[in-house]
Amino acid sequence: MVQQAVRGDRVEELARRRGFLWQAYEIYGGSSGFYDYGPLGARLKRQLEAEWRLFYSLEGFYEIESPNIAPGEVFKASGHLDCFTDSSVVCKNCNRFFRIDDEIATGGKCPECGGELEAAGEFNLMFQTRIGVPKMDAKNEAYLRPETAQGIFINFQRLLRFNRDKLPFGVIQVGKAYRNEISPRQSLIRLREFTMAEAEVFVDPRDKNSHPGFDAVKATEIMLNPAEGEEGEMSLEDAVRSGIIANEYLGYHIAKVKEFLEKMGIPIERLRFRQHRKDEMAHYARDCWDAEFLSARYGWMEIVGIADRGDYDLSAHAASSKVDMSLHSPEGKIIPHVIEPSYGIDRIIYALLESGFAEERVGKENRRVLRLIPGLAPIKAAVFPLLNREELKMRAKEVFQSLKRELVYVDYDDSGSIGRRYRRQDEIGTPYCITIDYQTLEDDTVTIRDRDTMQQRRVKIDELSGELKKSLR
Amino acid sequence: MVQQAVRGDRVEELARRRGFLWQAYEIYGGSSGFYDYGPLGARLKRQLEAEWRLFYSLEGFYEIESPNIAPGEVFKASGHLDCFTDSSVVCKNCNRFFRIDDEIATGGKCPECGGELEAAGEFNLMFQTRIGVPKMDAKNEAYLRPETAQGIFINFQRLLRFNRDKLPFGVIQVGKAYRNEISPRQSLIRLREFTMAEAEVFVDPRDKNSHPGFDAVKATEIMLNPAEGEEGEMSLEDAVRSGIIANEYLGYHIAKVKEFLEKMGIPIERLRFRQHRKDEMAHYARDCWDAEFLSARYGWMEIVGIADRGDYDLSAHAASSKVDMSLHSPEGKIIPHVIEPSYGIDRIIYALLESGFAEERVGKENRRVLRLIPGLAPIKAAVFPLLNREELKMRAKEVFQSLKRELVYVDYDDSGSIGRRYRRQDEIGTPYCITIDYQTLEDDTVTIRDRDTMQQRRVKIDELSGELKKSLR
Repeated sequence: MVQQAVRGDRVEELARRRGFLWQAYEIYGGSSGFYDYGPLGARLKRQLEAEWRLFYSLEGFYEIESPNIAPGEVFKASGHLDCFTDSSVVCKNCNRFFRIDDEIATGGKCPECGGELEAAGEFNLMFQTRIGVPKMDAKNEAYLRPETAQGIFINFQRLLRFNRDKLPFGVIQVGKAYRNEISPRQSLIRLREFTMAEAEVFVDPRDKNSHPGFDAVKATEIMLNPAEGEEGEMSLEDAVRSGIIANEYLGYHIAKVKEFLEKMGIPIERLRFRQHRKDEMAHYARDCWDAEFLSARYGWMEIVGIADRGDYDLSAHAASSKVDMSLHSPEGKIIPHVIEPSYGIDRIIYALLESGFAEERVGKENRRVLRLIPGLAPIKAAVFPLLNREELKMRAKEVFQSLKRELVYVDYDDSGSIGRRYRRQDEIGTPYCITIDYQTLEDDTVTIRDRDTMQQRRVKIDELSGELKKSLR
Repeated sequence: MVQQAVRGDRVEELARRRGFLWQAYEIYGGSSGFYDYGPLGARLKRQLEAEWRLFYSLEGFYEIESPNIAPGEVFKASGHLDCFTDSSVVCKNCNRFFRIDDEIATGGKCPECGGELEAAGEFNLMFQTRIGVPKMDAKNEAYLRPETAQGIFINFQRLLRFNRDKLPFGVIQVGKAYRNEISPRQSLIRLREFTMAEAEVFVDPRDKNSHPGFDAVKATEIMLNPAEGEEGEMSLEDAVRSGIIANEYLGYHIAKVKEFLEKMGIPIERLRFRQHRKDEMAHYARDCWDAEFLSARYGWMEIVGIADRGDYDLSAHAASSKVDMSLHSPEGKIIPHVIEPSYGIDRIIYALLESGFAEERVGKENRRVLRLIPGLAPIKAAVFPLLNREELKMRAKEVFQSLKRELVYVDYDDSGSIGRRYRRQDEIGTPYCITIDYQTLEDDTVTIRDRDTMQQRRVKIDELSGELKKSLR
């Protein structure tokens, strides 16, 4: 079977057409950097988030939920008010502002009109707002969070108490974050509002080199692109022992990120871990590795960051709030260090769609198929009557209703030819299609067609939901 | 057994102490109207949201996800820029602003310092922000959404196409909404940032009186408080036939709201449906019923609103955007009507905590217990060694690990007396406690203690996870 990936520039078109992702505010001319998840996209996203929660819950981590809006004091302390900025330029001709990136820095001309550019200063990337009545004083200044992590750090004491004053412990949060990008041209990749799934792991700095789970993952082979030295694959154990990865905690969480992404269906040959160079590190990070996905359209793109934030955040909030953020040990006060795997959920969804869409030659036709793992497929099964006949439709609707009670996300379709209906489900990633035909009326069996192999097999209706549940696992 | 509810004013203290809900930004002096969900609260909330999604997914509704930030045009069209306001007063003495509510309107004095109040005009309740570089023009004005619904309405055409141009269909969204309250004094009840779960049901206006599922729910008895006439219980059928509830669609969704709340554990005797009087109706509503919970602390409080929004929103966006939002039928153009059940998730959680916490006299002691349904309990089971002995702890940890793989949300505790450990789990709503004792080492059985009855029974370890799964359903 001849198979090839759907071209990068067609992924977004397909995603839009089939109800995964829509440019937001289109009826009002659109708004750059904002996307809607359509019915299929939202379901894919909810399932990805649920898998992520489950994965880190099994690590023993607890979730919290903190607000999207935070008073200015929080980001004064965290350093975001001072450091979370991009340098901008403005076009003397069309007055458009741009972020200084590689293209602008080398080109020097306006990407929109070709006009001359001049420096326009540092631009803070946080969305600003105000809490309460406008006439009140400057204390009401507030911001939309640029990461979910700060909501965890400022609750450190409560969380430590919840964990009975013991280290280490992990806390997760899944939610929206906001960055008021100057010129978000790579639409889906540089969003102004996006979803992060972050884990903050608090560890005694003296224990960073002894993670209790390291032995179980140390044989993992990982493609590494270190700040110094060559890109290459090596075992996690070698990477940590040779100092390429700074400590076991960081190494363990790099392995976990790889495990999760692979489990979700990200092709391992399009994944690498790249270490930040000193000059690209966020203001809070001592060390940072990005899990990067090789996109056919955008090149290597970050989908997860795994940072060693040291004691930066807890120390900063302790200094600002005058609240003690340390533990007391016989050797004195200890400020925990933080290891943070931070997932960009929207980018992972893009990566799943780009790597999942394929085009295949089947006989004389092309078929497009979206290869999602069953756990992420928005529709688990679709039920069809073979022909548009009343007796088949009636039976098919019965099967559909009973399957819906069991699997919930089930579709029914009786419009157009059966081939067309298969194609429609292939394109949205539905793993199984169930067809009711005249044999069904005689012996209570139906066919199950597999999305990937296109093979069909007959099963008893009584055994259908059990069969599907087994296959969907 | 003598049992009584925990006093209203102690619910929030308990919720805070045990890690359900925390005042946000406490280390910076707090910020009114913002709450954190701690580890137990976030888990309760996630499960409630999952139950809600499942409930409406079984209705055949699809979820979408639209951004929290929207350009001003959206709310100019929806009427929120002009109508979503509260009247305010300011204290001449302390300069504090207040929303004019019943208390302020009758008292006429500042609730903080007793000073004289004067009118301070209309105050729009939306949080304002700006998209992009500040120097750019007024088109960059943006707002945080005050409801999730608008994100669905402006996608109406895409959603209609997704549903193959057929009515009716339902679309759901769960997410944050924001209201910049002037004086959010009732902390947990009047939040500035909160979670809504909304369903928008689009229906042909000519079909509003024939919901296909009405027959199945018409016998439901509901406590109604209509705008005109007496409060009283009646069947849904009588309420619709007599015109108290305007149409079958509205009636059907009132029944569904009741069904969902009851299923989640809201005591039915503390629930009523109150119709809005003409002068309290939102600008978009033709008719609205609130599901109200009788709080020991706050009195009757709205937890769900079920509105008939008519064609208000689609017509408003069609007029503003010049995009056609109608269907074409042989009789001409039809603009669908919208029936909207809109759930306040945070208030439902408050209601579950308030009605769930109870104090009981057990022998000579008091015990506090949180009666949550098993599906919402943050921890499903806790595993204890009876005594703090190595051989019991070892076996208990094995049982804990294997149970964790099956049920995920499982706790292990070996600190303090067994009685104390039971109490701790009772107070956070854990339905089952598993104890490992010396008999376990002999015959591989453990005891399961039931939170509500405090009865214990012995089961084989092999059958433990199966037994629990059955009971947790």
